[in-house]
Amino acid sequence: MEAAEGVGAPTPTEEMNGAGTLMDFLDEPFPDVGTYEDFHTIDWLREKSRDTDRHRKITSKSRESLWELIKSLLDAWSGWVVMLLIGLLSGTLAGVIDLAVDWMTDLKEGVCLSAFWYSHEQCCWTSNQTTFADRDKCPQWQKWAELMTGHAQGAGAYLLNYFLYVLWALLFSFLAVTLVRVFAPYACGSGIPEIKTILSGFIIRGYLGKWTLLIKTVTLVLAVSSGLSLGKEGPLVHVACCCGNLFCSLFSKYSKNEGKRREVLSAAAAAGVSVAFGAPIGGVLFSLEEVSYYFPLKTLWRSFFAALVAAFTLRSINPFGNSRLVLFYVEYHTPWYMAELVPFILLGVFGGLWGTLFIRANIAWCRRRKTTQLGKYPVLEVIAVTGITAVLAYPNPYTRRSTSELISELFNDCGALESSQLCDYVNNPNMSRPVDDIPDRPAGPGVYSAMWQLALALVFKIVITIFTFGMKIPSGLFIPSMAVGAIAGRIVGIAVEQVAYHHHDWIIFKSWCRPGADCVTPGLYAMVGAAACLGGVTRMTVSLVVIMFELTGGLEYIVPLMAAAVTSKWVADAFGKEGIYESHIQLNGYPYLDVRDEFTHRTLATDVMRPRRNDPPLAVLTQDSTTVEDVETLIKDTDYNGFPVVVSRESERLIGFVQRRDLTLAIKNARQKQDGVVSSSVVYFTEDAPQLPASNPQPLKLRRVLNLSPFTVTDHTPMETVVDIFRKLGLRQCLVTRSGRLLGIITKKDVLRHMAQMMNQDPESIMFN
Amino acid sequence: MEAAEGVGAPTPTEEMNGAGTLMDFLDEPFPDVGTYEDFHTIDWLREKSRDTDRHRKITSKSRESLWELIKSLLDAWSGWVVMLLIGLLSGTLAGVIDLAVDWMTDLKEGVCLSAFWYSHEQCCWTSNQTTFADRDKCPQWQKWAELMTGHAQGAGAYLLNYFLYVLWALLFSFLAVTLVRVFAPYACGSGIPEIKTILSGFIIRGYLGKWTLLIKTVTLVLAVSSGLSLGKEGPLVHVACCCGNLFCSLFSKYSKNEGKRREVLSAAAAAGVSVAFGAPIGGVLFSLEEVSYYFPLKTLWRSFFAALVAAFTLRSINPFGNSRLVLFYVEYHTPWYMAELVPFILLGVFGGLWGTLFIRANIAWCRRRKTTQLGKYPVLEVIAVTGITAVLAYPNPYTRRSTSELISELFNDCGALESSQLCDYVNNPNMSRPVDDIPDRPAGPGVYSAMWQLALALVFKIVITIFTFGMKIPSGLFIPSMAVGAIAGRIVGIAVEQVAYHHHDWIIFKSWCRPGADCVTPGLYAMVGAAACLGGVTRMTVSLVVIMFELTGGLEYIVPLMAAAVTSKWVADAFGKEGIYESHIQLNGYPYLDVRDEFTHRTLATDVMRPRRNDPPLAVLTQDSTTVEDVETLIKDTDYNGFPVVVSRESERLIGFVQRRDLTLAIKNARQKQDGVVSSSVVYFTEDAPQLPASNPQPLKLRRVLNLSPFTVTDHTPMETVVDIFRKLGLRQCLVTRSGRLLGIITKKDVLRHMAQMMNQDPESIMFN
Repeated sequence: MEAAEGVGAPTPTEEMNGAGTLMDFLDEPFPDVGTYEDFHTIDWLREKSRDTDRHRKITSKSRESLWELIKSLLDAWSGWVVMLLIGLLSGTLAGVIDLAVDWMTDLKEGVCLSAFWYSHEQCCWTSNQTTFADRDKCPQWQKWAELMTGHAQGAGAYLLNYFLYVLWALLFSFLAVTLVRVFAPYACGSGIPEIKTILSGFIIRGYLGKWTLLIKTVTLVLAVSSGLSLGKEGPLVHVACCCGNLFCSLFSKYSKNEGKRREVLSAAAAAGVSVAFGAPIGGVLFSLEEVSYYFPLKTLWRSFFAALVAAFTLRSINPFGNSRLVLFYVEYHTPWYMAELVPFILLGVFGGLWGTLFIRANIAWCRRRKTTQLGKYPVLEVIAVTGITAVLAYPNPYTRRSTSELISELFNDCGALESSQLCDYVNNPNMSRPVDDIPDRPAGPGVYSAMWQLALALVFKIVITIFTFGMKIPSGLFIPSMAVGAIAGRIVGIAVEQVAYHHHDWIIFKSWCRPGADCVTPGLYAMVGAAACLGGVTRMTVSLVVIMFELTGGLEYIVPLMAAAVTSKWVADAFGKEGIYESHIQLNGYPYLDVRDEFTHRTLATDVMRPRRNDPPLAVLTQDSTTVEDVETLIKDTDYNGFPVVVSRESERLIGFVQRRDLTLAIKNARQKQDGVVSSSVVYFTEDAPQLPASNPQPLKLRRVLNLSPFTVTDHTPMETVVDIFRKLGLRQCLVTRSGRLLGIITKKDVLRHMAQMMNQDPESIMFN
Repeated sequence: MEAAEGVGAPTPTEEMNGAGTLMDFLDEPFPDVGTYEDFHTIDWLREKSRDTDRHRKITSKSRESLWELIKSLLDAWSGWVVMLLIGLLSGTLAGVIDLAVDWMTDLKEGVCLSAFWYSHEQCCWTSNQTTFADRDKCPQWQKWAELMTGHAQGAGAYLLNYFLYVLWALLFSFLAVTLVRVFAPYACGSGIPEIKTILSGFIIRGYLGKWTLLIKTVTLVLAVSSGLSLGKEGPLVHVACCCGNLFCSLFSKYSKNEGKRREVLSAAAAAGVSVAFGAPIGGVLFSLEEVSYYFPLKTLWRSFFAALVAAFTLRSINPFGNSRLVLFYVEYHTPWYMAELVPFILLGVFGGLWGTLFIRANIAWCRRRKTTQLGKYPVLEVIAVTGITAVLAYPNPYTRRSTSELISELFNDCGALESSQLCDYVNNPNMSRPVDDIPDRPAGPGVYSAMWQLALALVFKIVITIFTFGMKIPSGLFIPSMAVGAIAGRIVGIAVEQVAYHHHDWIIFKSWCRPGADCVTPGLYAMVGAAACLGGVTRMTVSLVVIMFELTGGLEYIVPLMAAAVTSKWVADAFGKEGIYESHIQLNGYPYLDVRDEFTHRTLATDVMRPRRNDPPLAVLTQDSTTVEDVETLIKDTDYNGFPVVVSRESERLIGFVQRRDLTLAIKNARQKQDGVVSSSVVYFTEDAPQLPASNPQPLKLRRVLNLSPFTVTDHTPMETVVDIFRKLGLRQCLVTRSGRLLGIITKKDVLRHMAQMMNQDPESIMFN
């Protein structure tokens, strides 16, 4: 039933014009006409047209009976149902992943005696140790050395713990990479570059499949728990999109229409970010700004719904145990001052430089992996990197713990009850202020040693992340980027705080920082630094600020965040326009036509179209003088996706365009089912059969598979307009005419190749490989 | 210099192909080619193409000298400068308007003796009365009766105050309507329908002019102060757009390109909403969802910047005296419960019904105004409505005060210190809880009398708003809509609270509302009601929820708000798809092609194109056989905006399209400046002059003004595709061909007329009148 709409685009024409005239065998639907092959680009206009047809059919049927009316209502509501299901499942999966990661990360260090499935924190909740300072010390939780040898202290115990930590890490990452290799190769990486490409209209079968969903969820837990420098945010977007794809298959409205399916996937991406950060509005904006290609406004509302459902599902699972929606909840008690904009902007510059460095180094390393022997041993690579990471990370308390805990601690303002080393300030004995409002204090020895450890952690994170992102395991980039920024920010923040404390009289502090006041919040610097680094790598703008805004929940700190985000983007853009995702899209050669690239060259359609000068002429069909054999030869000899149909080879006036796939299927079908169709049968695309002598074999009518409204531009059309048309209408190809004569064809790949050429890049890299 | 780009679209072609061949006189730029006339639609593709040309020129020049490089950098930064200026000016204007409205609203009741320019609140701040309960009573503030007669109490004083209140109101509104009538007729109304139309590509000269800006700002203050049932939010968007237009004129990049100008206006609209509600993110989303047509992602970031600058400028002016950014700051202390979703959804239904009622009644009344004698006496109408409003509003304390104060009070949670009549609950003597957490209490007599007054206020607001919106003064709809919803919501909230208090044991309350607990927050109901009513009228979705979210600053209450907003939209949509702005656009007959309308009919381009069957043939020019006189006759006899150029009348193969305006200017110019061009000169559009006998007059080459890449579709193209192309590419017209032969033309107005026809509306209403 549904497949009949495969020939959707030309159908309305045909039914209106051809009604009453001869009906050919193609009125009987046959399967697969109108679908796309793997690694091909969809035609958005055609998909939209097919959906409108479908909708029209349902609406007209709904007047016939009550049952059809109910079916049409169900159809209208199916969009909301899909959103609800996506929200529920992705929220649940995110919660499960959070809980599992918590448990397995702690498993590397020890185990809970009362119940082995408790994480360290849960273990100590349930124990009766309730003083705040001792909240992570309780007898039920034992480190491995303590459990195995009975000694909790000493060099031997330390080394045993160290050894087991590395061993667990290696085990987790080995499992992760093996599962990915064996069951779902598409489950590796962050997935965002591929999702961007898919949403732009490319088909990668299996990339969003059930198997990928399952394996990605499991291996994501393993990869994050192994302590590698990677995050779960990007992969969560992939997981949510897999959920979206899964639920699409429940409704033929979405499963049979690649355009509608992408609407759902856009919303799923929003749900993914929503659960990754607990930021529903930020998630919707991320999907809008960063991921989506065609984002109809109707989708905005639905995306928001999916994002909210997902966020609330996650909250009801309550994986962080604090009823908070957000990953890093922070509350600051002091405002910021104008003078602080200087360090904030410096952090922005750092973020931009980090973004540039990371993208260049990571792309260079990934290219090396693709082109050399290195790429042949993915398991070994993962094991080696995990080993190095674990060995180097364990001695430093700031790298030993999970990265999100680290960020959380760095963002935190030092309250009176804070036991962290970072909050080891020298207390003023006659302090009698409320808990929340602590004045700036001189740093104690703990802070100084923390500074050194953080500096080492910074260098370590910067280097190891470059080698980690792109390995054959699920790996997100948000958390490592934010960690780099947060460490740098906290260091700068503490430095500014101490300078301001010790030099109140300096002219730069005098105006805003009195002695005994709480002027500088190092946690805010960490947050600004995190935003700057994330912005430098991904080039997010509004969505970044909104996500950060949802974390703090106040407009107060938007200006510092914006200042840093803008600086970081400008600095990074000065070295190269592309963010990490675009760079990976290019590295992998996906046919992605970026909406944001401005095409500013003065070339014309005639410079881009095929055939070029000296090429053989364009492969065309004529409307009533080609035989079945000619067509079959043409299909065999060429690999074009479709052929223009012209009046005759002499006049070259364009009639329509026929897809290779549809043509093949139609001829195969006719040869099987229709008597009298032989190799010498004339194929005709006109409304009436051509006048032929009676002795000739029966002609074959193929007007049904002919698209009578192909898209054309003139040869004088500037390429910037052509690029715009390809982007906005989502075309696969476009025919070029001059004064009504067909001259050539421009495909999406021609456009991409031309753009790469204009930017002096290797044009041949633009192809899926 | 800049005007040379008027013929931008075809220029690159020409310069590439015609370089070195004969150069015609049109190489000399002449003014006004390529601009648009008033009440015409712009061609987005052409504007974009012109901007790319301009950009290319600047980039290539910037390599020539340092000065050019600096100029090119300035050009690149001008977008940000414009945003900064818009933010600063619109924030300042909003602050000034807020202060002036406060003062003038209070002036209707009395005057501050210490300084007459103080509003009531400011007057009492400066006095030494500082107890919270008496904060609005101070000797410096005197009501008119007290000042004039010395008696503050008694029927005489009341009547005198009443009389003066009405008098001031009449004076303000008379001034407002007169100023609008005399100086800037475009300053009336909310302006959002017109801004939507302008952003979709229509030209209304003067609508965003300096004069409109000035008069709208002044009259907005007068109109709001007069106590009419209108708000300042919509007009603030208009004011911000006027600012945007003003600053566009500083940079030729924006002033000479209608497409780029609209990018700035989109951002200005965001800044307008940002200052109206103190909600920058909501403002950007409002602009994206509700107002903008083409919203390139680059604009998103800039809009956000403008919105933030505007919000912070407003905050530094601090018109509300509380350092808050938002108009209605609220903080609730209790969560909501699942069972409460039932009243929330009922409020959503109410909002949807109100939206439907309001739109229908208001449109009917506005149509009456347009078509009957009523429209001839706008001043009288305003005076009459103001008089009725003031006379009816004064006796009721909830309608006497300004609407935003009313909403603010309705949103508020009753704290322990609240002196409002709405918070007159019977206090439990043994209450010893903290101030923030007051359990539900029985209502006192004040609450009961407030309920009656609120019910009367509700009816009054509902009726009077229908007659107010659309009068010839600046009038926004957000505040009155929110007031209706807030009143209804507060009434429902108090009812639920009292029922829950008195019937704890009912099964519906048992599970969540223990005696002595604070279960129901009537203020939250008011907020949900306000969102529902605003949603019903405007059909905003995401932006509505985000604005409300920014008001409360917590994700906690998003679910109730969403439930109400979704319900209200669904209920309202069931009665008619159009919001108030779209309805007014239709009423005024603006050529607005809604992005959200789905076109689902099975018509083809051939059914819509002109000429129709039996019409005279299409007016075309031939490429080398028309004389100057023929062209002039054609221009005189027809009123088409442009003419297709074909090879010859026999073959009808399309060459290009020429704009009427450019043709007229070019011929006029040639007749003046070029020797030998007479009426019988042949006009040619080919690259080389046609071979003519030497005796013939000198031919006139017009290839320069010819658009060589007109947009074409085939006659078989489904109209849904054509509509999509018009929307996404922003075309003015599109040519229809079959097998390379020109058949007809479809203009934007043809598309609109066809859509209206398909929806069984009067197709002739679709024209600016």
